[in-house]
Amino acid sequence: MLDQITVLAPGLLGASVARAAHERGLAKRIVVWARRPEVRLQLDEQSWCDATESTPEASVDNASLVIIAAPVDRIIPLTEQIAAQLPADAIVTDVGSVKSEIARRGHAALGDRAHFVASHPMAGSEKTGWKNSDTDLFEKRTCFVTPLPETHAPSVDTVVRFWHDLGSEVVTVSPDAHDEIVAHISHLPHVLASTLCAYLQRKDHSWRNYAGGGLRDTTRIAASDAKLWRTILEQNRDEVLRAISEFQEELQAFHSALSNRDYLEVTARLERSSDYRREFRP
Amino acid sequence: MLDQITVLAPGLLGASVARAAHERGLAKRIVVWARRPEVRLQLDEQSWCDATESTPEASVDNASLVIIAAPVDRIIPLTEQIAAQLPADAIVTDVGSVKSEIARRGHAALGDRAHFVASHPMAGSEKTGWKNSDTDLFEKRTCFVTPLPETHAPSVDTVVRFWHDLGSEVVTVSPDAHDEIVAHISHLPHVLASTLCAYLQRKDHSWRNYAGGGLRDTTRIAASDAKLWRTILEQNRDEVLRAISEFQEELQAFHSALSNRDYLEVTARLERSSDYRREFRP
Repeated sequence: MLDQITVLAPGLLGASVARAAHERGLAKRIVVWARRPEVRLQLDEQSWCDATESTPEASVDNASLVIIAAPVDRIIPLTEQIAAQLPADAIVTDVGSVKSEIARRGHAALGDRAHFVASHPMAGSEKTGWKNSDTDLFEKRTCFVTPLPETHAPSVDTVVRFWHDLGSEVVTVSPDAHDEIVAHISHLPHVLASTLCAYLQRKDHSWRNYAGGGLRDTTRIAASDAKLWRTILEQNRDEVLRAISEFQEELQAFHSALSNRDYLEVTARLERSSDYRREFRP
Repeated sequence: MLDQITVLAPGLLGASVARAAHERGLAKRIVVWARRPEVRLQLDEQSWCDATESTPEASVDNASLVIIAAPVDRIIPLTEQIAAQLPADAIVTDVGSVKSEIARRGHAALGDRAHFVASHPMAGSEKTGWKNSDTDLFEKRTCFVTPLPETHAPSVDTVVRFWHDLGSEVVTVSPDAHDEIVAHISHLPHVLASTLCAYLQRKDHSWRNYAGGGLRDTTRIAASDAKLWRTILEQNRDEVLRAISEFQEELQAFHSALSNRDYLEVTARLERSSDYRREFRP
């Protein structure tokens, strides 16, 4: 059991971490810092929050493990802000969706006193905010842990065990490999859902009322916060651009097959993707 | 209440129509024809099936309303097969996903003796077969009814009332307008989900095990039956090709904005689609 975990900037993910850690008894003490005082007042009343602090620096005093749950563009500034206050050998992790830059700069910010181990739980929702948090959010979901070669190995083990104990299936990969993977399985799907909505938005708006389950499901994530996604796409720009380009070639090949009435090819493509999708875990 | 409804080729949709009609007391008698004798044996044991017949012709004897629930390429052949056997003024409808050709040829097949009124309930599932049927499948879902100008108006009223009584929200549009709408809200989303899976299939297959809710939702419909979708796309080829092309322009514009680091434009596009998606009905 950890002596103290500190959660910085708890939204949906951070509060779910704190609640799940509380329920599973992973820490003796859970301290939280939220930027807005009125949120801290509310958090003080939650059973899973032992204390709130009014500054990030104060909240990490005595922390064994710090989870930075801020949006991707705020993770490094917060890491730099708390660096001098961290106890020796404290571990800092995050939940950001892009890892190359964060892993490198997080490591640099802490130097040798404390240890930055970047993480990315593949959990979330189009809903945001700590009030939508869920103690089972990480249950059976992939959590990437993305150490650099120079990352302190025992700290990697601690972070892996932490996510494992929250119910996640941990996958350890390099930050670069992570960013390539999520460009394909998360960022590209988001761009497609969003672009489909942007396209339909130019058409008769009554059409959306006719939507069956297909359109509803394929576009659900397009309702997510635009500013958050702008930052994710900015940080993973090169990988996302490459994935979009390759997808465009695949879509053009489908268009050509249908345009040429090559129904053998159309069917072969539909079958290939149907076979692939049916192998997803339940 | 109708004296007799006959359901031809009950899969998920046809059996759901029969079960919902039975539960809501919309017909005195429900007769079913299925192609395979072993399926007819099973259907004979269902409470919602008053009788099965071994030929489509025999099953429509005495029918007030016939629902043809076969795949789109089988609807017109079945209509032609039963035409001579239909009682005078019987009504025939269908559940096919594409309407222009079916509405025109269905009308031609029946002449003046009976009345073809094409329908398309926006309900379904990636699952198929009568055993997955659901009495609430049409509840609060759009059902398009797509008469031609020359379609017998009282029969249109009967078909509209029938779907309304099954719980659907009926929208009456021309077959051509229907095909334009579904190219956008159903066929294009399907092509995108399918192409995304076909693209990912070329990559490391372990990636799909890491999928969060986003990828799972955006690709769910890609698991649907390939042969069924080949026929749908074939019948609505021109509209689908146009929608794919316009989507490609929208995707290229997004790619350019991200490539040019025009984050104002990236954010504006994400916001436009997020606003659009949030206005979907719950």
